[in-house]
Amino acid sequence: MDMLGFIERKRDGGVHQAEEIRRFVTAFASGEVPDYQAAAWLMAVYYNGLTDEELREFTLALARSGEVLSFGGDLFLVDKHSTGGVGDKITLLLVPLAAACGLSVAKLSGPGLGFTGGTVDKLEAIPGFRTHLPSEEFLRQVKEIGCAISGHSADLAPAEGKFYSLRDVTATVPSLPLICSSIVSKKIAGGADAFVFDVKCGSGAFMEDYGSAESLAEALVSLSKNLGKKAMALITDMDQPLGEWVGNAVEVLEAVRVLGGGGPADVREVAVSLAGAMVSLGKGISFEEGCAMASEKLDDGSALEKMKVLVEAQGGDGRVCGDPEAVLSIAPEKAFVRAKGSGVVARIDARAVGEGVKRLGGGRMSLGEPIDLSVGARMLVKTGTAVSAEDALLEIRYGSKDKLKESLPFFEKAFSVEETTLNSPRQGEEKKRSFVLGTIR
Amino acid sequence: MDMLGFIERKRDGGVHQAEEIRRFVTAFASGEVPDYQAAAWLMAVYYNGLTDEELREFTLALARSGEVLSFGGDLFLVDKHSTGGVGDKITLLLVPLAAACGLSVAKLSGPGLGFTGGTVDKLEAIPGFRTHLPSEEFLRQVKEIGCAISGHSADLAPAEGKFYSLRDVTATVPSLPLICSSIVSKKIAGGADAFVFDVKCGSGAFMEDYGSAESLAEALVSLSKNLGKKAMALITDMDQPLGEWVGNAVEVLEAVRVLGGGGPADVREVAVSLAGAMVSLGKGISFEEGCAMASEKLDDGSALEKMKVLVEAQGGDGRVCGDPEAVLSIAPEKAFVRAKGSGVVARIDARAVGEGVKRLGGGRMSLGEPIDLSVGARMLVKTGTAVSAEDALLEIRYGSKDKLKESLPFFEKAFSVEETTLNSPRQGEEKKRSFVLGTIR
Repeated sequence: MDMLGFIERKRDGGVHQAEEIRRFVTAFASGEVPDYQAAAWLMAVYYNGLTDEELREFTLALARSGEVLSFGGDLFLVDKHSTGGVGDKITLLLVPLAAACGLSVAKLSGPGLGFTGGTVDKLEAIPGFRTHLPSEEFLRQVKEIGCAISGHSADLAPAEGKFYSLRDVTATVPSLPLICSSIVSKKIAGGADAFVFDVKCGSGAFMEDYGSAESLAEALVSLSKNLGKKAMALITDMDQPLGEWVGNAVEVLEAVRVLGGGGPADVREVAVSLAGAMVSLGKGISFEEGCAMASEKLDDGSALEKMKVLVEAQGGDGRVCGDPEAVLSIAPEKAFVRAKGSGVVARIDARAVGEGVKRLGGGRMSLGEPIDLSVGARMLVKTGTAVSAEDALLEIRYGSKDKLKESLPFFEKAFSVEETTLNSPRQGEEKKRSFVLGTIR
Repeated sequence: MDMLGFIERKRDGGVHQAEEIRRFVTAFASGEVPDYQAAAWLMAVYYNGLTDEELREFTLALARSGEVLSFGGDLFLVDKHSTGGVGDKITLLLVPLAAACGLSVAKLSGPGLGFTGGTVDKLEAIPGFRTHLPSEEFLRQVKEIGCAISGHSADLAPAEGKFYSLRDVTATVPSLPLICSSIVSKKIAGGADAFVFDVKCGSGAFMEDYGSAESLAEALVSLSKNLGKKAMALITDMDQPLGEWVGNAVEVLEAVRVLGGGGPADVREVAVSLAGAMVSLGKGISFEEGCAMASEKLDDGSALEKMKVLVEAQGGDGRVCGDPEAVLSIAPEKAFVRAKGSGVVARIDARAVGEGVKRLGGGRMSLGEPIDLSVGARMLVKTGTAVSAEDALLEIRYGSKDKLKESLPFFEKAFSVEETTLNSPRQGEEKKRSFVLGTIR
């Protein structure tokens, strides 16, 4: 193909034909188009964007660069995607929760990288749980019990992976159309009929302010609809880690508690809202009705029961749903981060907490690195909590003292306590707020 | 180096530190920075440009990536650079002309590529002429006779060559700062003290309109001055080929005629102006005084005499200056392009003429290809010339009938003859016009 003309067209603000986009993606995936030409094109897209039609074709071409899963005609599948946050155990509980609401959920998850953990790693903490199912078994399980979670192979939209690697080293990650094509192409390849996006917003997320999170949410929904899918997006708070626990086994523990009707309010609110959106798309009822149904399934025990069925179907120890602390291996050694003075917790830097847990051994810097599933950290306060000097802010569960030492600076810098003012809440009192910041339909 | 941060800074319109620019150029030249990262940076520069200070550092770093020539302290050297045009035999006659005016001219030339010919190729048409001189001999000759012309090696600003190759395949050629850095870095490495730029303007040039030619001319002069050099730029006409002849031996023929006080008016005007600019910079006299001196040296025979000295010093047959047709090997076979109807020559597409000569065998598509020095084409009309049907427009000198056949479509489409209107000149009469369109000091 005439790659020079292709780059020039985008460089000069022109519009690509569908056919040349398809040829470009194929030629790049095969190695025929060299990285340096793709890099120049990506930077031109960074400046000039893609039209709706170009974005649709580019996304489809990425999705079709490998196997596109198909689950037969009778199942209406709803998938969920999160842009990634610290302490985000939502997938763990959303899959059984949505299935308890009567949906079919075939969830494919990638590995965790950077400062956010991966769902597959968290599931590995359940003894016996098989995190990678062969396609037929995955599909059969969805048909039998309504849900399955499996790590996906590199075959899913492989061209996307190649583009992502190149974007990562050429400063072309933060481009709205490129972000959308990356996310949606993998969803398309995953074969679902409807997508719910959890766009994280705040200091611990890729989108730090509400405006950019809203733009991404709108773009994801618009692109999905242009590709013939039903879609909704929620913008959820990631100014501080979600829930109490950050780690692997410890996040399973927290997910089980929320499934049983307990657990932290923010995790429950985000899970109920995402399940509500999924049910709304899957059953054609209102978002509010969907949320009410999800809430009921947490309180009446059916969501937890579905989790037990899911865990056991994938070979895991189902007792994790009854007495999680007996089944999960959680590091017994504790350390604490304490307040240096009294005041109000002004900020909890989610990235710093994530980096701390990674350095405890609970996350990885590069693919294939082994991780320690038993370590973790528990937020004992939220932003807005009033504290006194020496109050514990964070409980750390660690395995090695060396790694604890390496992680402590991250945990310590994560908390900012500011002096109490007249308007501050009293100790033990928390500001009432919503963790779902916006809904895009 | 932190290449990602470096690309991000330029992507976001930031300014690089001098030190990081130097490190980037060194790391790219050594292969440490991969092409795809350099490509992303080049595209960011395409959009965001470089500040004067960045451009200065980038250009210096390119110049210093290989040997920087030095000719000792006592010579004040003036160099000339043309942005490239069809029929541009100016260097051939400018070097002896400027030397006849008392300047020291150490001219390094690159090979011809694309639709414009190279000076080195043209000089090869003079029997015996040694186009590549060792450094010491080159320098000694400049000191002894005031001038020398030699093909330059790849050692001159090698990083520039590497960047240019990458720009060529990533659609980042037409960027003013990148063009300037490319041109000026090689001039800096060539070691001269003053530069005169011949910026070609028109349909046969890289800069097609006057505004962009003027911008390039101003930017070249400004960058050169920022690097401590004296500089001037002329904007000269390239709406049609320069002079009558396009080829190799035939351009030497034309150059010798102009050196002897004859030849086409446009070649003489451009050569006198460029020599005037060089003399002005080299002797500290006015541009007009410089032009008057150059004009005098053409008319009194001293420029042609200097050419003979130059040719003989480099081993060539000096009789080329007395009876060029006897010495030069020019293809005897002739063919003509004729006017289809009567009217006025509205346009002569210089690119098409250049492409035609290339297909005759007179130019090359890729480095190292052998070329036929004896072929060429002669413009028998200029734009504005009134012609009748069947009048010859172009004389072609060819070697092979196959190649003639291949070249004819290019030559034929090069000429546009439009119907005569009341305001048109009569046959044989030409519009009086200047071929030097502007002067930037």
